[in-house]
Amino acid sequence: MRQSKLFGKTSKTVSENLKAVSHKYLHQGGFIRESVAGRYYFLPLGMRVRDKVIRIIEEEMNKRGAQKIITPILHPKELWKETNRTESVGFELMIVKDRRGSEFVLGGTAEEMIIDLVRKFNISYKDLPFNIYQFSQKFRDELRARGGLLRVREFLMKDAYSFHADEKDFKKEYQNMWKAYEAIFAKMGLETVAVESDNGYIGGEYCHEFVVENTEGESRFLVSDDGQCAVHEDIAVFKKEEKNADEKEKELQEIKALRGKTMEDGVKFHQLPIWQQIKDVMFVDNKDRMILAIIRGDLDVNEVKLMNLIGAGELRHATDEEIRKAGSEPGFISPVGISKNVLVAADDSLRTIKNAYGGANKKNADLLNVNIDRDYKPNREGDIAMAHEGYLSPAESVLTGKNGIEVGNIFQLGYYYSEKMKDAVFTDKNSEKKPFYMGCYGIGIDRTIAAVAEMHHDEKGIVWPEQIAPFQVHLIGIIGKDKKIKKEVEMIYGQLQKQKADVLYDDREDIGVGAKFADADLIGCPYRVVISSKTLEQKKVELKKRNEKEVFLVSKEELFDLVKK
Amino acid sequence: MRQSKLFGKTSKTVSENLKAVSHKYLHQGGFIRESVAGRYYFLPLGMRVRDKVIRIIEEEMNKRGAQKIITPILHPKELWKETNRTESVGFELMIVKDRRGSEFVLGGTAEEMIIDLVRKFNISYKDLPFNIYQFSQKFRDELRARGGLLRVREFLMKDAYSFHADEKDFKKEYQNMWKAYEAIFAKMGLETVAVESDNGYIGGEYCHEFVVENTEGESRFLVSDDGQCAVHEDIAVFKKEEKNADEKEKELQEIKALRGKTMEDGVKFHQLPIWQQIKDVMFVDNKDRMILAIIRGDLDVNEVKLMNLIGAGELRHATDEEIRKAGSEPGFISPVGISKNVLVAADDSLRTIKNAYGGANKKNADLLNVNIDRDYKPNREGDIAMAHEGYLSPAESVLTGKNGIEVGNIFQLGYYYSEKMKDAVFTDKNSEKKPFYMGCYGIGIDRTIAAVAEMHHDEKGIVWPEQIAPFQVHLIGIIGKDKKIKKEVEMIYGQLQKQKADVLYDDREDIGVGAKFADADLIGCPYRVVISSKTLEQKKVELKKRNEKEVFLVSKEELFDLVKK
Repeated sequence: MRQSKLFGKTSKTVSENLKAVSHKYLHQGGFIRESVAGRYYFLPLGMRVRDKVIRIIEEEMNKRGAQKIITPILHPKELWKETNRTESVGFELMIVKDRRGSEFVLGGTAEEMIIDLVRKFNISYKDLPFNIYQFSQKFRDELRARGGLLRVREFLMKDAYSFHADEKDFKKEYQNMWKAYEAIFAKMGLETVAVESDNGYIGGEYCHEFVVENTEGESRFLVSDDGQCAVHEDIAVFKKEEKNADEKEKELQEIKALRGKTMEDGVKFHQLPIWQQIKDVMFVDNKDRMILAIIRGDLDVNEVKLMNLIGAGELRHATDEEIRKAGSEPGFISPVGISKNVLVAADDSLRTIKNAYGGANKKNADLLNVNIDRDYKPNREGDIAMAHEGYLSPAESVLTGKNGIEVGNIFQLGYYYSEKMKDAVFTDKNSEKKPFYMGCYGIGIDRTIAAVAEMHHDEKGIVWPEQIAPFQVHLIGIIGKDKKIKKEVEMIYGQLQKQKADVLYDDREDIGVGAKFADADLIGCPYRVVISSKTLEQKKVELKKRNEKEVFLVSKEELFDLVKK
Repeated sequence: MRQSKLFGKTSKTVSENLKAVSHKYLHQGGFIRESVAGRYYFLPLGMRVRDKVIRIIEEEMNKRGAQKIITPILHPKELWKETNRTESVGFELMIVKDRRGSEFVLGGTAEEMIIDLVRKFNISYKDLPFNIYQFSQKFRDELRARGGLLRVREFLMKDAYSFHADEKDFKKEYQNMWKAYEAIFAKMGLETVAVESDNGYIGGEYCHEFVVENTEGESRFLVSDDGQCAVHEDIAVFKKEEKNADEKEKELQEIKALRGKTMEDGVKFHQLPIWQQIKDVMFVDNKDRMILAIIRGDLDVNEVKLMNLIGAGELRHATDEEIRKAGSEPGFISPVGISKNVLVAADDSLRTIKNAYGGANKKNADLLNVNIDRDYKPNREGDIAMAHEGYLSPAESVLTGKNGIEVGNIFQLGYYYSEKMKDAVFTDKNSEKKPFYMGCYGIGIDRTIAAVAEMHHDEKGIVWPEQIAPFQVHLIGIIGKDKKIKKEVEMIYGQLQKQKADVLYDDREDIGVGAKFADADLIGCPYRVVISSKTLEQKKVELKKRNEKEVFLVSKEELFDLVKK
């Protein structure tokens, strides 16, 4: 391709609002442009990268027996009602109505659509297993879009769905897709960590995020020193050490407490360790239930774990007014004697302490010697604690906190959808109808491209891995007034094209050599080839790899050999 | 691919509602499935065809200098307001709102989006021309979906947009795309006619539909015997012969006319030729204007021409009540003395007659000797007549009516969009800002596939042209109990795969040979290869082309040569 004809230009400068490196370089190099927040155009250069990413995923999926299909973009809302996801996904969902009044969902995933397709066939156990996938535009009505392609509202996703007779068979496919993902990301130059995660509104019991460790990422996860676990903050469990659990229970006591509302105020007032204080956090969930989460004072509440424990779809902090309406007092909340209208969810860390202290549900009054079971009985009890760096894994290995970009995920769905949707069944050997055991597997194309740019760049621009570079070769002539050089460059370009080499030829006549070199670095093709009077004299061309400093002189034959397809 | 693993099955029978052959076979062969009316899934077989169609289009577009990009699917409504298409497209448009209240259009085309992208760059005359295209899902909220992929509500479209400094440069691209389309459709085995058409809500002054002549098609067009014109019914002009134009004008006369309300009732009552009668049709347009269309009695009103003449976006017939409210009478309407609130649009055929007759705007009263200019003055006058088979072209060649499937179109847009949208300009040689001169070019992928199936099938199924067949070879073994044959078939399959041949291997064990042959015909791969004890004896394989009757015995080497990539 001749660069003079290329639609989309590089920019020398870029708005300071483009904070993420990937956003900056993808914009500056002329790969993408924003339409409105979180919605992007791919320009010709970006499209070439995107197409190569797609091809890699497709090859690896096909190789592992998955079959490509496509579903409509508009999902009939009735289907989402069958699984109740219209409620559980809630805020992220966009709905559109047609002129006949039918409603459609702009989906973030397509489980219902795929099951609706599969149930149109009489599937027998002989047809199982199968895995069908698509590349299709997905929609998430995110509150905040950020970082260019890192968090968007509309994006291309490879989403695959597998159907099995039982869990055992599914587990093979889960491993198969795990391997596929490792291969896919490796081909793009991405090292990923498979992080145990929460299934969220997708449903099912377990899943793994494929995460590229990077500070720009929004996935917080923990890895243990012994290499045994990599787990998302949302679900990470850790060892909660006993504190004073063998202490004798003392008498419950209410005292006047002229103190501020924070945990620290409590510590200062009572001169007792923070772990002995009860931390009380009042929430309201999407069913308008008041939820009191209680936990040992030195720990934090993990809202995802809390939602899973109490079966909530969304949570928000209660207002002071709501807390008072529930018969308590901000800063002085206590599970002891709290209204029956409040659902009390206790972290199991409260079993590691005795004679705790905290509020008394009224202003400037605290309770001392509060003990679980004796003084209050939680409605739910379990692990709702947030793991932090430095804590110990259950196997007592130190946890380290990491940030990463989630580029893909694999989900066990089990019977989550097939039990909710009618006729999501196959006929088994005994002619009985059985629900499918399912899995699903996603890769966000846009975010994957951003992750590559985050991981592969220097101060001059992106350094694309060969397999997904927009072009393999960036050809530049230092022409000046010498027509011979122009002729030579054109000849080499022609020859490269004949070989079907993937080459971007900077034939722009009104651009200086410096600017051309800067553009080549910014665009980031793996090989830069320069023709000048100097190289011509030596009957060579100058070759430089984008990720190396050295410049080599090679013969034309060597060049042609190098870029042969 | 092993057929035992293929997702999506053939069906022996099919609902009688599937009237179009393409719909029937695409469903029955396991290429597509309907989600809800007008929205389709592509199954793995259908996807292979779709991908090959896409690849052909892409190759031809790239070869001719077009560059692939992609826009978001949700178009900010503000952009559509800039061009007022929110109003002019009207009923076909779907709007979706996000949680922040921003509105988006699910577009049928993307002119506004593309211009919004282009104006983000400082385009100079040196950057012109360029042509950028995408494959993206399009939405049309059609009242009626029909014929499977022939008329759908959601479909993949290749839409291209070209930007030029002036009309002369644009015209080169129009020819370039015309050639591209001929090449694209020819590769898919489609012979197309480029039919002059109406630009409709796309805007601009002229366009051509690429139409495959077929009775299933909804595009009505006329071709002249002299081969000089192929033109859509909507805009076809024809020669309107003089009738009695040189007759002397007689005195206008109102008479009692106890007759029925039809044109024929008028002819019978007055015993005068139908062409001498004035046909009056009352419409209401989208701006609630009352429109009286008048035309020579032997001709019909063409609503598209009428809309273009009066600048209306939509038309409907007025009700009897509305006609009376406008001071007239159904069956007795006349332009003579009609209320000033009615806009009178006259066909120029009224100049070919004298002393016409027709209603008198009251019940059972007619006017005789009505003459244009003397007795009434139309507000607009022009060609609003519908051409029919048998009429003469302006060059006096007989017109023949045809039906066809519109698979693509190319539009001159001129300044239609660039004058409406802010900053849709480039900098010319004199540093002045000039609006872009534009064109756009669409191909409907889904309908193109349907057209191929309509044109290439027999009583057993689809006969795919080689370039877009789901597989090149359908391999079948007649195995019985002979393990040697099974081994031989597997060996041949392995060899074909090694050669990267595109082969579907029917390895299903519980399916009879007859059913396998029927499936092969239904799916319609170009080559059927059969291995049996008979072929094995002769060290040959049986080869049959889908579009031929004969069966050949060829050596394995010949087969491998044949399918080599």
